[in-house]
Amino acid sequence: MDIVDYPELPQKERILKIAAQLFAKRGFHAVGMSDLQDAVKLGRGALYHHIRSKEDLLYEISREYIRDLAQSAAQLLVEVRDPSERVQRLGTYLVRKIASHQAELTVCFREIQSLTEPRLSEVLEYHSKYERAWRDTMVDGADAGQFRPYDHVTLKAVLGMYFYGYLWMTPGRAPTAEVIAERVNELALRMLKAA
Amino acid sequence: MDIVDYPELPQKERILKIAAQLFAKRGFHAVGMSDLQDAVKLGRGALYHHIRSKEDLLYEISREYIRDLAQSAAQLLVEVRDPSERVQRLGTYLVRKIASHQAELTVCFREIQSLTEPRLSEVLEYHSKYERAWRDTMVDGADAGQFRPYDHVTLKAVLGMYFYGYLWMTPGRAPTAEVIAERVNELALRMLKAA
Repeated sequence: MDIVDYPELPQKERILKIAAQLFAKRGFHAVGMSDLQDAVKLGRGALYHHIRSKEDLLYEISREYIRDLAQSAAQLLVEVRDPSERVQRLGTYLVRKIASHQAELTVCFREIQSLTEPRLSEVLEYHSKYERAWRDTMVDGADAGQFRPYDHVTLKAVLGMYFYGYLWMTPGRAPTAEVIAERVNELALRMLKAA
Repeated sequence: MDIVDYPELPQKERILKIAAQLFAKRGFHAVGMSDLQDAVKLGRGALYHHIRSKEDLLYEISREYIRDLAQSAAQLLVEVRDPSERVQRLGTYLVRKIASHQAELTVCFREIQSLTEPRLSEVLEYHSKYERAWRDTMVDGADAGQFRPYDHVTLKAVLGMYFYGYLWMTPGRAPTAEVIAERVNELALRMLKAA
C-alpha cells in the first residue's frame, strides 16, 4: 500500500489523510513524528503549526469517522420506518464509508486502544451509539414480526460481517462498494428474517 | 483487562502467554521489553535466556495459533464429508479457540502487520490456507446442491462474522463459547444455504 498524497486539500486535512494511511499501514505506535514529517514533506515547525501531538491525530481520525457513522445511523432511525429497509440503508452507508475511507476506518476499528482518557471513552461512546442504532433496528424488526427475536450474538455477528470489510475490500477493484453492499445486506437480512 | 500470570507453566510458555496479553491490551509497538520484564517478573538476563527479541514473541504467538487453525481445518476437510456439518465443525473449533485463547487470537488477527519478512509471508500463508479450507467447504456445498454458488464476498462475510468474536467475546461470562458457536454456526448456514 503506497501512501497517497492529497495536494489539493487544505494542509490540516491533508496531514490527517496521510497520517491515517501511515497508522493503518504500520500501526499507530510504529509511526514516529519524524516518519509523519517525511510523509507530509513539511518541516517540524510547519507540522506542529497544524497538530500538537500524534495522539491528537489518532483522536481526530477515530472520532471523525465513528461520529459520522453514529450520526448517520441516528438519522436513519428517524427517517426509515421499515426495519428491513433500514438494515439495507445502514449497511450500504457503512460499506460505502469503509470503501471511501479505508485507512481512516482501519484506524477507527483497530487503533483506538491507544487513545488515553477521556478521549478513549468519548470515542467508545460513539461506537456504542452506532451499535445501539443497529440493535434498535433489530428490535423494531422483531416487534414488526419481520425479524427473529433480538439477541446479542446475532447483533455482533452482523456487525462483524460488515466491519471486517476494512481488511479485505480493495478500493478501485471489483467488486465495487455497491455490489458488496448489496450482497452483504442480503446476507444480513437472511440472518435476521423470521423463519 | 488484568494480566493473568500462569505460574504453573514452563517459563517459555508462561512468557508467551503474558506477552500475548500485553500485546493484545496495548498493541505490539506500545509494549517495551522492560514492560515485559516487569510483567513476567524476570531479570533481563533470565528473560533473554528464553527469547531473543520482541518480534520473536510476536512471531511465535501469531504463527502458533493460525497454524493450529489451518491444520485443524485441513483435517476437517478430509474427515467431514457433509458440507453443512463441516461448516459447523470449522465454526465451533474457531469460536472455542477464540474463547480459550482470546489474547493470542487478538494478536494473530490484529498485530501481524508488525512482523517483518520472511516471517510475515509465512504467517499470511497460514491465514490463506485457513481461508481456503472455508472456501473449499463452500464450493463443496454448492456442488452438493446444499449451498448457493460460491462467491468471494460471502466467504469474507462469514469469516468476518466469526473473527470479530475476538473483540466482543467475554470469557467466563454468559453466553458460553458453546452457545455462541451454535448460534453463529446457524447464522452461517442461513447465509450459505441454497434458497
